[in-house]
Amino acid sequence: MPATAADQSLLQRRERSLGPAYSLFYERPVHLVRGEGAWLFDPAGRRYLDCYNNVASVGHCHPRVVDALGRQAATLNTHTRYLHEGIVSYAERLAATLPEPLSVCMFVCTGTEANDLALRIARAVTGNHGIVVTEDAYHGNSTAVFEMSTEEYPARERPAYLQAVAAPCTYRGPFRDPFRDLGRAVGADGGEAAGAGGGEAAGAGGGEAAGAGGGEAAGLGYAALVGEAVAALAARGHRPALFITDNAFSSNGVLTAPPLYLREAYRIIRAAGGLAVADEVQSGLCRLGDHYWGFQDSDVVPDIVTMGKPLGDGHPLAAVVTTPEIAAAFARRYGYFNTFGGNPVSAAVGLAVLRVLEEEQILQGVHDTGAVLRQGLEALAERHDLLGDVRGKGLFFGVELVRDRASREPAPAEAARVREHLRENGVLLGTSGPFHNVLKIRPPLVFRRQHAELLLQRLEEALAAV
Amino acid sequence: MPATAADQSLLQRRERSLGPAYSLFYERPVHLVRGEGAWLFDPAGRRYLDCYNNVASVGHCHPRVVDALGRQAATLNTHTRYLHEGIVSYAERLAATLPEPLSVCMFVCTGTEANDLALRIARAVTGNHGIVVTEDAYHGNSTAVFEMSTEEYPARERPAYLQAVAAPCTYRGPFRDPFRDLGRAVGADGGEAAGAGGGEAAGAGGGEAAGAGGGEAAGLGYAALVGEAVAALAARGHRPALFITDNAFSSNGVLTAPPLYLREAYRIIRAAGGLAVADEVQSGLCRLGDHYWGFQDSDVVPDIVTMGKPLGDGHPLAAVVTTPEIAAAFARRYGYFNTFGGNPVSAAVGLAVLRVLEEEQILQGVHDTGAVLRQGLEALAERHDLLGDVRGKGLFFGVELVRDRASREPAPAEAARVREHLRENGVLLGTSGPFHNVLKIRPPLVFRRQHAELLLQRLEEALAAV
Repeated sequence: MPATAADQSLLQRRERSLGPAYSLFYERPVHLVRGEGAWLFDPAGRRYLDCYNNVASVGHCHPRVVDALGRQAATLNTHTRYLHEGIVSYAERLAATLPEPLSVCMFVCTGTEANDLALRIARAVTGNHGIVVTEDAYHGNSTAVFEMSTEEYPARERPAYLQAVAAPCTYRGPFRDPFRDLGRAVGADGGEAAGAGGGEAAGAGGGEAAGAGGGEAAGLGYAALVGEAVAALAARGHRPALFITDNAFSSNGVLTAPPLYLREAYRIIRAAGGLAVADEVQSGLCRLGDHYWGFQDSDVVPDIVTMGKPLGDGHPLAAVVTTPEIAAAFARRYGYFNTFGGNPVSAAVGLAVLRVLEEEQILQGVHDTGAVLRQGLEALAERHDLLGDVRGKGLFFGVELVRDRASREPAPAEAARVREHLRENGVLLGTSGPFHNVLKIRPPLVFRRQHAELLLQRLEEALAAV
Repeated sequence: MPATAADQSLLQRRERSLGPAYSLFYERPVHLVRGEGAWLFDPAGRRYLDCYNNVASVGHCHPRVVDALGRQAATLNTHTRYLHEGIVSYAERLAATLPEPLSVCMFVCTGTEANDLALRIARAVTGNHGIVVTEDAYHGNSTAVFEMSTEEYPARERPAYLQAVAAPCTYRGPFRDPFRDLGRAVGADGGEAAGAGGGEAAGAGGGEAAGAGGGEAAGLGYAALVGEAVAALAARGHRPALFITDNAFSSNGVLTAPPLYLREAYRIIRAAGGLAVADEVQSGLCRLGDHYWGFQDSDVVPDIVTMGKPLGDGHPLAAVVTTPEIAAAFARRYGYFNTFGGNPVSAAVGLAVLRVLEEEQILQGVHDTGAVLRQGLEALAERHDLLGDVRGKGLFFGVELVRDRASREPAPAEAARVREHLRENGVLLGTSGPFHNVLKIRPPLVFRRQHAELLLQRLEEALAAV
């Protein structure tokens, strides 16, 4: 039920003109008219703290990005079949954020297009057709990529060339840590930014992967599933073209890859003739607080990296970055052209975002605010048994709600009530995960201590109220 | 070989950072730094008349569009899961340009995404998997849509669920008009805007379809191929989900659908349980001069219309428009969300473009300039035997070059020389068609008499020089 008669009228017009496939967030949809930094505003001037939108990466309506957009749009906007300095500069700057040999950029408009192109490249280069993907993943909405979005694509309709593996969750799943318990972990590790790396193997990988779940045993256990998937594909007559992960495992309820997971999984997929693809649409561009890209937390180098949402601070800009060898092998079979991808305006916007990231020292800010958030969320967990697990790092956290900490029974209704309570009290976040019981906290990267403290305060109130 | 040392350096950096899958137009690539209306400018300030770019639909850097873009980007840019007036207003205005019952809009970022979503909708709604598409078509570059892009996708790799039919060309192909000859047709019809509708059936459909090729016999002949395609699919165990055409048949060298073609083809595909999809990425938004959408020239109503390039005057904006019944049937199986598609900035830009089209009476302008162009091109054909056929209408023409009018032997080398000569003399256009022998003239919609006359003059000089 919308808040006002005007909203009700807008909602009816919306249903007529956009149809029923479109959904809205919240039981009482939010009507927004203005954004600034980490804040959003409704028509009555009421403000909402944005704890959800990663697209507005350097903040809603960042003046330097808006300025770059407007100036380039007033100057020239064509496509990549003419020479232009902008796209080259942007490609060079973007590649400079990545480890060698990832240096060739291909520009598209959406994360979906990026993952779809990565699939085309992997198939063309390997000569294989198979796909290994994690369960409950979301990679996009095109015909081919939607099949890889195991979260939404009907399981009974999965093509024979696709095999899903359990995502590397150590709170649930085949290699879960039975000792993983917020009370224990927080107590044992002393609280600050250490997280739930319980179990005997935690010491080995726990230093780098703060907040990671589980140790090397879990990492190797989950990675071994990739080998089983390769065997399952082979039994159906397919060889793998790629193994792809969203390195924040967002739709799994936000996971951190356990130690050795990506390293071993990449070794296995490459040995089977496939490529390792890092979907950094969610985990990329400083989101996780220690590096520009999520896979760097695992000290691996993928063959292909896909990027999307945050690159343009709202502008439709996405990219595939790969090695010169893979780019050359793809080009021997196909050309590629995307009318809007990498046009001068998109390049100017992308460049402006990279400049803001540097000049405002966003990575450091994400790291520092992330530490505040983790400490606060773990403190909340000490006072509220509803919190079963706190996962993530930087400015991407999943707070899993459970009815019982011992059985870990999911609490989706409670998660929804917390979400709605927050919405009514001026804080926007979402829910996620296969059981819809994980609070998803993924604010703009300009989220700072004062924002984090307000979120924690409102979250405590919501937990007390539901 | 680039024009300057600076261009040479830029070109080398470009090859390193973008890789070899990217191509550039022209033997001497054009380096552009500024655009305005129908003009583009290089770093030396030299101007080029743009006779190629349909993306900059209402002209390069139209101030009203730039203003709408900048203002909305400074105000709010989120996505479609919050209520916002902009997307609803834009959907209503866009739907108002289409005949009933096409009234439900779904927004994406590229024509590829639009066609990919149309495919998903058609398959979900019909329960069928098959595709009927024209030969030498281009519909986009995603995994699924690239398969439908018969121009580029390797013919030997076509999936069993896809069947291609000859595009309705009456200058070449199974239902070509043996009497179609520029000299005859122009003489017989008196020259102005009558085109090459030769043969006994021309009278029946020639009035509406000025410049169309052939008559009802050709239209029915080509449409009957759709029935044969349905039968071929059935023999391989597939039923058709859709029949899709680019209604300017751009990559076929620009064709105008002969009378009754779409009507009969739509009847056949619907009788077989498939949907009729109009790809209006090229032919839409006033391009053909008589209506907003290309299919309207054929007096049919498709089940799904896809739109792209020109909608945002350069901004990545695309859409699928369908009927409430089809939208509802799709939504019963799937939701749809596109992060950037239909965001407030894209909607503001789309609305600005629609307002400019109305206020500057663009459709009338396209119609009038199109008549000037056709007359001039036909006059050129009287003086240059190299011109075998002049096709198209509005501001989309294909000028087919042949070595011999009687044998219609394609003249691709001559077409390339004309293109390069024009580029060197400040006029940008491209070549197209299965034999690469068709000059593709597709300027911004603000192209007017003085631009057309300059193009015709430069083209005459080029024809004299090659």
